[in-house]
Order: sequence, then C-alpha cells, then structure tokens
Amino acid sequence: MAQRLSTAEEYEALLEKHDTWLFDCDGVLWKGDHVIEGVTQVLDLLRRRNKKVVFVTNNATKSRKTLLAKFKDLGVQAHVDEVYGSAYTAAVYISTVLALPKHLKVYVIGQSGLEEELHAEGIQTLGGTDPADNTLAPFNLNPESWKPDPDVAAVVCGLDTKVNYTKLSKAFAYAQKEGCHFIATNTDSTYPSSYGLLPGAGSISAPLRYALGKDPVVCGKPSGTMLDVIKAKIHFDPARTIMVGDRLNTDIEFGKHGGLATLLVLTGITAESDITGPNASPTVPDYVVQSLGDLRLADKA
Amino acid sequence: MAQRLSTAEEYEALLEKHDTWLFDCDGVLWKGDHVIEGVTQVLDLLRRRNKKVVFVTNNATKSRKTLLAKFKDLGVQAHVDEVYGSAYTAAVYISTVLALPKHLKVYVIGQSGLEEELHAEGIQTLGGTDPADNTLAPFNLNPESWKPDPDVAAVVCGLDTKVNYTKLSKAFAYAQKEGCHFIATNTDSTYPSSYGLLPGAGSISAPLRYALGKDPVVCGKPSGTMLDVIKAKIHFDPARTIMVGDRLNTDIEFGKHGGLATLLVLTGITAESDITGPNASPTVPDYVVQSLGDLRLADKA
Repeated sequence: MAQRLSTAEEYEALLEKHDTWLFDCDGVLWKGDHVIEGVTQVLDLLRRRNKKVVFVTNNATKSRKTLLAKFKDLGVQAHVDEVYGSAYTAAVYISTVLALPKHLKVYVIGQSGLEEELHAEGIQTLGGTDPADNTLAPFNLNPESWKPDPDVAAVVCGLDTKVNYTKLSKAFAYAQKEGCHFIATNTDSTYPSSYGLLPGAGSISAPLRYALGKDPVVCGKPSGTMLDVIKAKIHFDPARTIMVGDRLNTDIEFGKHGGLATLLVLTGITAESDITGPNASPTVPDYVVQSLGDLRLADKA
Repeated sequence: MAQRLSTAEEYEALLEKHDTWLFDCDGVLWKGDHVIEGVTQVLDLLRRRNKKVVFVTNNATKSRKTLLAKFKDLGVQAHVDEVYGSAYTAAVYISTVLALPKHLKVYVIGQSGLEEELHAEGIQTLGGTDPADNTLAPFNLNPESWKPDPDVAAVVCGLDTKVNYTKLSKAFAYAQKEGCHFIATNTDSTYPSSYGLLPGAGSISAPLRYALGKDPVVCGKPSGTMLDVIKAKIHFDPARTIMVGDRLNTDIEFGKHGGLATLLVLTGITAESDITGPNASPTVPDYVVQSLGDLRLADKA
C-alpha cells in the first residue's frame, strides 16, 4: 500500500532519504502551459540541498534543446544535461548500446526533434522530415521507382504527425531485412493535447509492429532503456533515488523496474480512484502526494 | 491430416460431394495478372454441373463492380452477385446487422471502393476520399478548427494508402464516443503487391486498435461476419459446401469456422513445408491439391 504524505515532517523525511530526483514533466511540473503551484520552489529547495535533479519525458518529437525551451518559457530552471527525452534516448541507444557503425543509416518515422538527436550522435538518417517521404502520393516497391538503401540497419519510430503510407512501407521494407534493428521511442498509446487525447507514438509504430509481427526495442518509460542511458551519463545510487510521476503504467512502472523509490502525484493523469478502492491499479507507488508543489513545506519542518 | 488429391477419380468424388464452391481469388484463380492454368476450365465445369460458385476476397479497396472488372480483364466468368469483398461485407454488416438508422453516419478510413459499397447500401460517410481529410497538414482538436459530427455512429477502417494523422485522429475521436461501432474490413497484416509485401488493412487499423485498447468487429476472412453476409444473400447447405483458398490463417480458418469443407491449393502463399513436417501449421485443411486447375481432370474420370 502506498504511503500518503501530507505533513512537513513527512516531506522532510522524503528529502532526507533521496539524493537523486527523477521527474516526469507534463502533469508533474506543469499542465499544458501552466506551472503547477509550488513546483519551482520545490526544485529550488532540492538544488539548495545539493540533490541531483533529472527530467525524464517520453516526448519524442522534441530534442533536448527544444524541451529546454519549454522549461525556460515556463520559468523552470533546468540544464540540457538534466533533460532526457525519448528521442535523445533512442539516439544514445543506437550510438552507444547498438554502437551502429558510422557508415550505416537509420530510417526514421518521426519529426525534426528525433532527427536532431540522431544527428547530434553522428547517426545518418533517411525518411523523417525528408519532403520526398512526406507525401500522400502512391507508393510501390517497383525498383524503378524506389531503390532501398543497402546501408539502412535500423528503423526508429516516434510520434510523427506526417506519418503516411510511403513512410510505413519503406520502414516495413527495411525492418524485414535480416538483422535490421526496430526501435520505438516510446509506446504511449495516446498523448494529451490541450483539447483532448490524440494518437501517441505507440499508435504510430503499431502498423509496423502488426505487419512485422514483432515488438520494437522501446526507449521511453517504462522501458529500462531510458534508465540505462541515464546511468551511462550520470552517477546515482538507485537506493537513494526517487522517480516522481503522474502515470502508474509509465512513470511508476519505470521507477519500480529500475529499483528506485516511486512518488505518485495526483496533478496529472492518475486520479485518487485509480489507486484506491476495488478498481485500483496493481501498480502501487511507494508514496503519494497531492502535488509536487506540496513538498515545499519540507523547508518548514 | 489433410487428404492429398491427385487423380481424376479423387477430383470427381470431390465435385460429387459439394454443391457450393467458395473461392479465394488471388493465389487461387490468378497470380498477379495471370490466370492459373486450367482454372477457367474448372469454373466452366462447375457451372455445367450446376454448382453454385462464390468468390470471397478480403480486398477492401475495391467495390464488387471493380473487382468484377478484374475477372473480366482476365477472362474469368463471374457475376457481380457471386463476388463478395470485405468492403461490401462491411457495408452489408452496417446496413443489415447493425441496421444503422439512415440519418446516422460512418467515418471512413479507406478508399473509394469502400465508400462506393457503403453508399450503395444507403450509408452516409465522412472521411474516406474527402480531400479535406487527405492531407498532411497539422491537426488538432480545437473546436474552432474541427467540430465532430454528432451523427457519426461508426468508424470503419480498411486499407487506405492515403492514411494520415488527421484521419487517424478523427477516427480515434469518434470511436471513443459511447456506443460508437468500430469495424475493420479485414485484418490482413500485409498484402502481396507485384513487387513484394506492403502493409495491409490490418496494419492501417492497428493505430486505432492500440489507441482505443479494443478490437474492431472484423468483416473479412477468417471472421464469420463474411459468411453471415453470404448466408443472408444466398442459400447453401454448409455440409455440401467447400472453401478453396491458398492461405491457412484466412481462407482455411474461415471455412473451418463456418463448418465448411476446406481445400488448400499450393499456387499461392502456402508452401508444401507449411503443411508437412515439424513446423506444420496447426490449421489442417480437409483436402490439398497442387492447383485448382488440376480439378479439370475430374471430367475425364
């Protein structure tokens, strides 16, 4: 059963126990374009106490630089090295874990942020924002109209609002090749836009998973790949690290898989009724607070 | 174990036992643009013997009229009432089984053949070939840019080579509505083009299945919906009916679900190695012949 924290003393004890704090962003730090009350004070408090802070988002359409711009716009202090998006994770996974030789290429279903992160890791890409592949024109496999590039050794798929049959068909052709890697930035089925739910990155890779009859390596939460990439970049002790999030099936699962403590906030997707009563999720966080902003009271303990 | 037929007497016995013959088309009657040797003679022989012949295809991009044009082009005699495509099946399912009131509408991910069949059944459609939805322009749910039609009561999804984020997002928005029907013409993961495999109708509906977390009603083989629609249109005795196909997981499963005899031909997808040896499929047809054309020898028995 999750421990519900609500007093300054409880918040202070939580701070004492954890040196590294991993945060999901949307629904935790902000909602849409509004910072959640008290969040900037809590982050300031953590930094004053020499805690390490890390921001972990499944957003696959933005590079870390672009993600950082959102922090700045909202007045939330952050450094690019503290921000991990699933596009960046995919790029580091390909360059470091797969150690893809530099002459090989990646076919991309995804947007400019994903391309930027791949290019920053020295990875050559095809597809993505290439105008030739952003089309609703008919596609066929006639070698006179399309010659597959023999150097493509991986297909990476993120959220792509210009997804189309040409991209899906090319990605499918490449991914069927013996030894071709199949990578998804994340498997979120939907994403919450300002006006409601839209299909997410997991829905964009669903045609490939179905046509190929196989699952991709997943980079985003709850996959451990994201934590492996963070571990490769910064040092932290899992026993003194806590993951803060608003989603049980991504954030809290991610922390649990990684052997981290987990803190659920109720300012995002998860409601009180999802964690209590007969329909409660089997995923139980270690701690629950109403809002991350509440932790600013720790200073008063 | 499947019975392998190879003599004139065996073919004749098969003809004697079955009054109604259901045929898959591609890989059975023809391959690409070539009629398989002997097939027109076999169809002529069946008609002379007063057998009922029915053509059953999962093709969801063509109306029955357009399908019929292919028969004519290849010199294979057929009547429009003998041809059942998954687009037609979806239309009849909506108009007859769901009995959708005429003032309600269907949102379509699919091509003109699917629209034609829906319109022929008096069903109003949105999406499909509407130029407004065949776009790679950004889409959002802001009610100032898109107002959902309150009369949409079903989403139907077939193969659509102009699939895009606007169509997927609108279909997703509609399909989430309480009571909205979710229908797929068929779930073929791929389809064999002249130059290789491309993503099939099942891959086009995969994003919706994943985002919604639910499966559609499926109209094409191996679903029983196709047979229900045929039953509603023609009379036949399942005990004296045989399904002829080249795919174990669609054609042969379809026949077995429906309590029909099943005949596998080896001129299409399924190879000898798929039905014999240690890796044989668990789906076992009643009979196997090398080619449908072989049955013309029955006349010599």
